[in-house]
Amino acid sequence: MALSRAQGVLDELKALFGPRALLSRAAKEVYRYDAILVGPEPLAVVLPESREEVAALVRLARRHGVVLVPRGAGSGLSGGAVPEEGSIVVAFTRMTRLEVDPHTQTAWAEPGVTTARVSEAARPYGLFYPPDPASYRTSTLGGNLAENAGGPLCFKYGVTGDYVLELEWVDDEGGIQRQGRAAYDLPGLLIGSEGTLGLVTGARLRLLPLPRHRAALLAHFPGVEPLAEAVSEAVASGAVPARMEFMDPACAGAVEDYLRMGLPRGRALLLVETDGEEADLVEEELSLVEASARRHGAEVVRAAGEAEAEALWRARRAVSPALGRIRPKRVNEDIAVPRSALPRVVREIEALGKAFGLVVVQFGHIGDGNLHPNILFDPRRESEEKVWELAHEIARVALRHGGVLSGEHGIGLMKRDFMLEAVDPETLGALHRVKEALDPLGLFNPGKVLP
Amino acid sequence: MALSRAQGVLDELKALFGPRALLSRAAKEVYRYDAILVGPEPLAVVLPESREEVAALVRLARRHGVVLVPRGAGSGLSGGAVPEEGSIVVAFTRMTRLEVDPHTQTAWAEPGVTTARVSEAARPYGLFYPPDPASYRTSTLGGNLAENAGGPLCFKYGVTGDYVLELEWVDDEGGIQRQGRAAYDLPGLLIGSEGTLGLVTGARLRLLPLPRHRAALLAHFPGVEPLAEAVSEAVASGAVPARMEFMDPACAGAVEDYLRMGLPRGRALLLVETDGEEADLVEEELSLVEASARRHGAEVVRAAGEAEAEALWRARRAVSPALGRIRPKRVNEDIAVPRSALPRVVREIEALGKAFGLVVVQFGHIGDGNLHPNILFDPRRESEEKVWELAHEIARVALRHGGVLSGEHGIGLMKRDFMLEAVDPETLGALHRVKEALDPLGLFNPGKVLP
Ligand SMILES: Cc1cc2nc3c(=O)[nH]c(=O)nc-3n(C[C@H](O)[C@H](O)[C@H](O)COP(=O)(O)OP(=O)(O)OC[C@H]3O[C@@H](n4cnc5c(N)ncnc54)[C@H](O)[C@@H]3O)c2cc1C
Ligand SMILES: Cc1cc2nc3c(=O)[nH]c(=O)nc-3n(C[C@H](O)[C@H](O)[C@H](O)COP(=O)(O)OP(=O)(O)OC[C@H]3O[C@@H](n4cnc5c(N)ncnc54)[C@H](O)[C@@H]3O)c2cc1C
Repeated sequence: MALSRAQGVLDELKALFGPRALLSRAAKEVYRYDAILVGPEPLAVVLPESREEVAALVRLARRHGVVLVPRGAGSGLSGGAVPEEGSIVVAFTRMTRLEVDPHTQTAWAEPGVTTARVSEAARPYGLFYPPDPASYRTSTLGGNLAENAGGPLCFKYGVTGDYVLELEWVDDEGGIQRQGRAAYDLPGLLIGSEGTLGLVTGARLRLLPLPRHRAALLAHFPGVEPLAEAVSEAVASGAVPARMEFMDPACAGAVEDYLRMGLPRGRALLLVETDGEEADLVEEELSLVEASARRHGAEVVRAAGEAEAEALWRARRAVSPALGRIRPKRVNEDIAVPRSALPRVVREIEALGKAFGLVVVQFGHIGDGNLHPNILFDPRRESEEKVWELAHEIARVALRHGGVLSGEHGIGLMKRDFMLEAVDPETLGALHRVKEALDPLGLFNPGKVLP
Repeated sequence: MALSRAQGVLDELKALFGPRALLSRAAKEVYRYDAILVGPEPLAVVLPESREEVAALVRLARRHGVVLVPRGAGSGLSGGAVPEEGSIVVAFTRMTRLEVDPHTQTAWAEPGVTTARVSEAARPYGLFYPPDPASYRTSTLGGNLAENAGGPLCFKYGVTGDYVLELEWVDDEGGIQRQGRAAYDLPGLLIGSEGTLGLVTGARLRLLPLPRHRAALLAHFPGVEPLAEAVSEAVASGAVPARMEFMDPACAGAVEDYLRMGLPRGRALLLVETDGEEADLVEEELSLVEASARRHGAEVVRAAGEAEAEALWRARRAVSPALGRIRPKRVNEDIAVPRSALPRVVREIEALGKAFGLVVVQFGHIGDGNLHPNILFDPRRESEEKVWELAHEIARVALRHGGVLSGEHGIGLMKRDFMLEAVDPETLGALHRVKEALDPLGLFNPGKVLP
């Protein structure tokens, strides 16, 4: 961008946003990366406080031909919030209004509200907000909506988009739009579009009554194959557990090294929680899972009470820090495959890791066939190029087995070019046409999702 | 259309489709109307048998500048399948391939498959397909997808779109597209777009395990107000009944006149069914509803066993024929309002009926606040113009109370012009842009949905 034009933009930003327009290199530094990729320094970072300010910003960007990169907490794992040169980062962390309406069992939330806060605010009314990405203490609803985020609870309860009754966003002309889920479901189109079709400024979310009872177990198997079979059998028998998480032996070992909680070595772990209104039924549902697990050679430990159950979920949440101790860096892949293909997929990815000479551990939301193969590496000793090549090969395994490129982390920058292998040219053309229809000037998050 | 051009189109249709291109006036006659409106005679009716034939038809239409009106069973209630002059009706009733895959608990269905057939084919595997419009014995999946149809089960189980894992459609260039529910959710955009964005040629549907137990009750109340309050209270207490249908006293009276099954006179009726894996829980959930009903002055009759429950649902299904005996014609309105507004809305609509001097009865899926005020009339004695005026006023009542124009029947022709009052110009502009992006020549179902 020509310097004089840039200066004009910066002057206007300063006038409009005052100290909420971050312009110094130091202030902008932390807005260059999300949880997986780093980008160049943006022209500016702006922290709007209302839908009207967001609209004004879009009009400014339009006038000057500057592009906008929306951003929540930057916990994304596909580079979606990473700026490009000359762009303005729109960080929504100051738009944090949240209103729970117990009467309609809904909440109105601005995009900067963190995921966990919704359930916290709903709890006094006996309600909760189910979508629970493992990042829920830091991730924002804006980011969740843009990625259509899932989480452990999503096998039973569904993903972010399933809880959106109404969406408000600023379009490419700076108009403020608001629509329910009607004919021509634009909210549904915006959800999961990773900030490339408009800037989300609010959503009416559906809340559910908090289940009264919970029960949990840990099952360990000789391998991932019998584990996946046990899960399929339990689901076929009618069990709909709230959470079903698995770890391969390498991942379980890393967690045990970290927590020293007595997890067995060399075993594939399955963590299961059932929930509901009736203690009996909750127990019985768990028994269905337990029986299938035992039939497939597992040893099963039931959590006695809330505290023991909490310890199990602590183990699951410890995966991230535990893996950080093995190698300083990691690429967190995210694929989804038909559950029946899971054992083969896990095996093929294991073999790929060995062939590349890189450490790969696997875990994920097994109910949905959502797998997170993580490549652990030390950039001082291992080639980053090889790591990305392996990530690409892992995505190919998913496609070969009838799966998809991303289970929940999105396409972003990281998987944009893989889209050419995942989507046929016809459909890709349609995606481009939608993008051009809603953002003809390409103002919103350019270079993401679409190759 | 110039005669010579029309002749060219007809010749090509004959060559491509043989006797499946219906060209005579008599053969085309039944394709002029759906369950609520009649249109002019189309140029031709075509009955394709494969996606490739649909694609060829789109290319033909494109070449000749002829528009296409997709059609399922014609059971629609907003005029969506009604042809315009010179159009080709594409009737999907011969595309009826259906394959259930019990392993993945899914089914692949072509658009001409009737709704009821999916559950019938799934039943031997202990599975079912929840979306159940009251028209499910005749309506097709193509029509269900285009309208995003609901039904009595949708309070607990959700609507058609919630069961679509993958959608296949033919685009405006005759390309065959197929996409899962990923970033840029085009399937979600097509679902509910009433045939205006593409022609659906197939869908992968999610199936659920059949619930093992059911229980049902009939509660009758002094009026709609305490009935609606009882429902809200029951839902707030954690009950999620599978079905909750209500009838106002006029509707209940019509059903009793028709069936003579001993329904009380002058009372508002609530029919409730709970279902699930555990007989105890299913009973307990029903008890929650029963208790709230009694607290609001209802008398409650529990169905003893399947046969009595079936009789209750027969009463609900008898609404259509029962109303047909009161006046020869009716306009079936379809609005959705916040459940808390329902008593006031019902009262206002009652008053409107009186003011217009027309018979209005009301019933619907009360769990979702989905109301079907029906205007009954005799076109020989009552002004049809006045009937449509009243229908418009009813839609306005919904909008005034924070509701929407259509709960499940769609916008079609019937409510197209009401859209101007329901959707702000900004959002309407966005809808038009999407239409232009996916169908720039306006080939698909012109004149529907968008004013
Ligand atoms: C340890 C860890 C665990 C995780 N676990 C899960 C998990 O279980 N499930 C899961 O789904 N994800 C998970 N994630 C990924 C990530 O947390 C989610 O994608 C989350 O939704 C991102 O939210 P964010 O606020 O950090 O968004 P960001 O990373 O800031 O942005 C994500 C995307 O949203 C866009 N965006 C942000 N705000 C807006 C807005 N207002 N309007 C339009 N676009 C916007 C950005 O442009 C970007 O494309 C995890 C991440 C980490 C680090
Ligand atoms: C007695 C009765 C009860 C009803 N109860 C309910 C109910 O409980 N819930 C409910 O939601 N509806 C109900 N309806 C309305 C109607 O049955 C539904 O809208 C149904 O989904 C229409 O299906 P159809 O096959 O008859 O579609 P049609 O009426 O033929 O067409 C409906 C729309 O779908 C489009 N379409 C059809 N096939 C395709 C295709 N392959 N590709 C693209 N577009 C296509 C048409 O262009 C049109 O816009 C009821 C109707 C009647 C008569």
